[in-house]
Amino acid sequence: MLIIVKIGKLEKEEISKNYFNIMAKTRIALIQMKMSSDQKKNMSSAIKKIKEAYKKKAKVICLPELFLSNYFCQQEKHSNFNLAEKIPGKTTNTFCSLAKELKIIIILPIFEKKTSGIYHNSLVLINEKGKLVGKYRKMHIPDDPQYYEKFYFTPGDLGFKSFKTNQGNLGTLICWDQWFPEAARLTSLQGAEILFYPTAIGWHPKEKKRYGKSQLNSWISVQRSHAIANGVYVAAVNRVGVEKQGSKKLEFWGNTIVFDPSGNIIAEAKLGEKTVICDIDFKQVENVRRHWPFFRDRRIDYYKGILNNPKDA
Amino acid sequence: MLIIVKIGKLEKEEISKNYFNIMAKTRIALIQMKMSSDQKKNMSSAIKKIKEAYKKKAKVICLPELFLSNYFCQQEKHSNFNLAEKIPGKTTNTFCSLAKELKIIIILPIFEKKTSGIYHNSLVLINEKGKLVGKYRKMHIPDDPQYYEKFYFTPGDLGFKSFKTNQGNLGTLICWDQWFPEAARLTSLQGAEILFYPTAIGWHPKEKKRYGKSQLNSWISVQRSHAIANGVYVAAVNRVGVEKQGSKKLEFWGNTIVFDPSGNIIAEAKLGEKTVICDIDFKQVENVRRHWPFFRDRRIDYYKGILNNPKDA
Repeated sequence: MLIIVKIGKLEKEEISKNYFNIMAKTRIALIQMKMSSDQKKNMSSAIKKIKEAYKKKAKVICLPELFLSNYFCQQEKHSNFNLAEKIPGKTTNTFCSLAKELKIIIILPIFEKKTSGIYHNSLVLINEKGKLVGKYRKMHIPDDPQYYEKFYFTPGDLGFKSFKTNQGNLGTLICWDQWFPEAARLTSLQGAEILFYPTAIGWHPKEKKRYGKSQLNSWISVQRSHAIANGVYVAAVNRVGVEKQGSKKLEFWGNTIVFDPSGNIIAEAKLGEKTVICDIDFKQVENVRRHWPFFRDRRIDYYKGILNNPKDA
Repeated sequence: MLIIVKIGKLEKEEISKNYFNIMAKTRIALIQMKMSSDQKKNMSSAIKKIKEAYKKKAKVICLPELFLSNYFCQQEKHSNFNLAEKIPGKTTNTFCSLAKELKIIIILPIFEKKTSGIYHNSLVLINEKGKLVGKYRKMHIPDDPQYYEKFYFTPGDLGFKSFKTNQGNLGTLICWDQWFPEAARLTSLQGAEILFYPTAIGWHPKEKKRYGKSQLNSWISVQRSHAIANGVYVAAVNRVGVEKQGSKKLEFWGNTIVFDPSGNIIAEAKLGEKTVICDIDFKQVENVRRHWPFFRDRRIDYYKGILNNPKDA
């Protein structure tokens, strides 16, 4: 968004809103959806929900991680690599057309085939002209019973990403990245004003009763703290529903959520399919960072140890 | 604590508990106290409370930041440098004797004079033999209306610290460090199982009504997330009470708190003087890190940007 402002010599010049960080707002939509094993059905469900969000004036719309399929990582199954596709490819083409038609930005997760034997858990950012302006490949790959992601995904090789758009600086991360303060920090240092986290997280049915509440609280807390520590908006969008793969199942916990740069929850879903629509006021990033000036006081002269693993115990 | 274990070849060898991380527990005490302008009174109050905690079998006792005085940083006043003292010095000598007498570990904040013109907001760790085993100098220095710390304290020059003791690996940080994920990470990477944060944080009376709840929530959230992201215990001990300096005052918000390595609150105070006593089970560090293996997946090959400030907006 270019704003014509009148400020002394700059009069009549076009100045990016990010320079002054005043007056600019946007509206985001996070599509909390249920997936099936039918890719076409997931695709048309996503398109339908994007159009609904567009009608509610959302300008930036983000889908959940791997939204085109069930969460296939519940099993290690070689045929699942058939689900991967190239970028650009059929799916990105479809959503590039949609973004152009509606003049919206879409953050689109994709199971990406880079080449034979190299697959990534990726997303692309498509701008309002239908242009694919950036790609992010999930940097932190989990591996846990029924979350066998290390079998499928090579860790990202593009680093951390924030994209300048006409709706602000949009940082993109994916799911497990949520747990790493470094990921939020590095994306924020690049200028991100909102961190988007397409996600697929849920409860193991056996664990839910005992640990479910604590797990969900941890997930909320750690993201809230990224908002606070970096003075940025944080927007996480999760899938929902029980998915069965073979004899195993997971219950995805929804709870799509948006935090303001002070860490207050400003929009959230609980369970069930729901599109969370939320207004973003970029002035708040400036405002919060003036009052909580953490960036000012970072000890970059003493942070080198971050590049190491823990020392031997 | 050295434990004799019987495991194959290691039989009868002495093995640090940290290697196996089993069976070892400790009990910590966090002394949430009110300070006056009378240093002697603060000293005797701290000693009295330490003795009470000792009677309740606490093995590691931590005092709040700058416990010997009022929070003098409310004003920029040169004569306040008179409050600073050398390490080792009179105060550390007193507490070294006390630690030896009671056979406890004391984490003791000190306004440190390094040399003329260089003062630090420091702490020392004194072991159960009365030995001063380590020093930490606050790395991140705030500066905000009525928190004029940059006037008094040179940022720490010793880096981040974790100390091996017979009651576990104890990481030490101070107050404003709380807001920096890097500080928690770097201390944890050195082996800390508990992060201690002696603190002096409170409400501006004018802001309390509007922002007080949100500020306190942010403070709790960001520390909870250090516990989660690092799989460590986090123990923050704050002062309490309204302190007036000149025409200004601050209300220190207490809320001394302990999180387990999953981020659950396991002990807390609200307002008022209170010593929080809490049992620590070091097995939980191992256990939580097995189930939430964030250390495994850190992308140290892509974290170099952490050593930079944000790029120009």
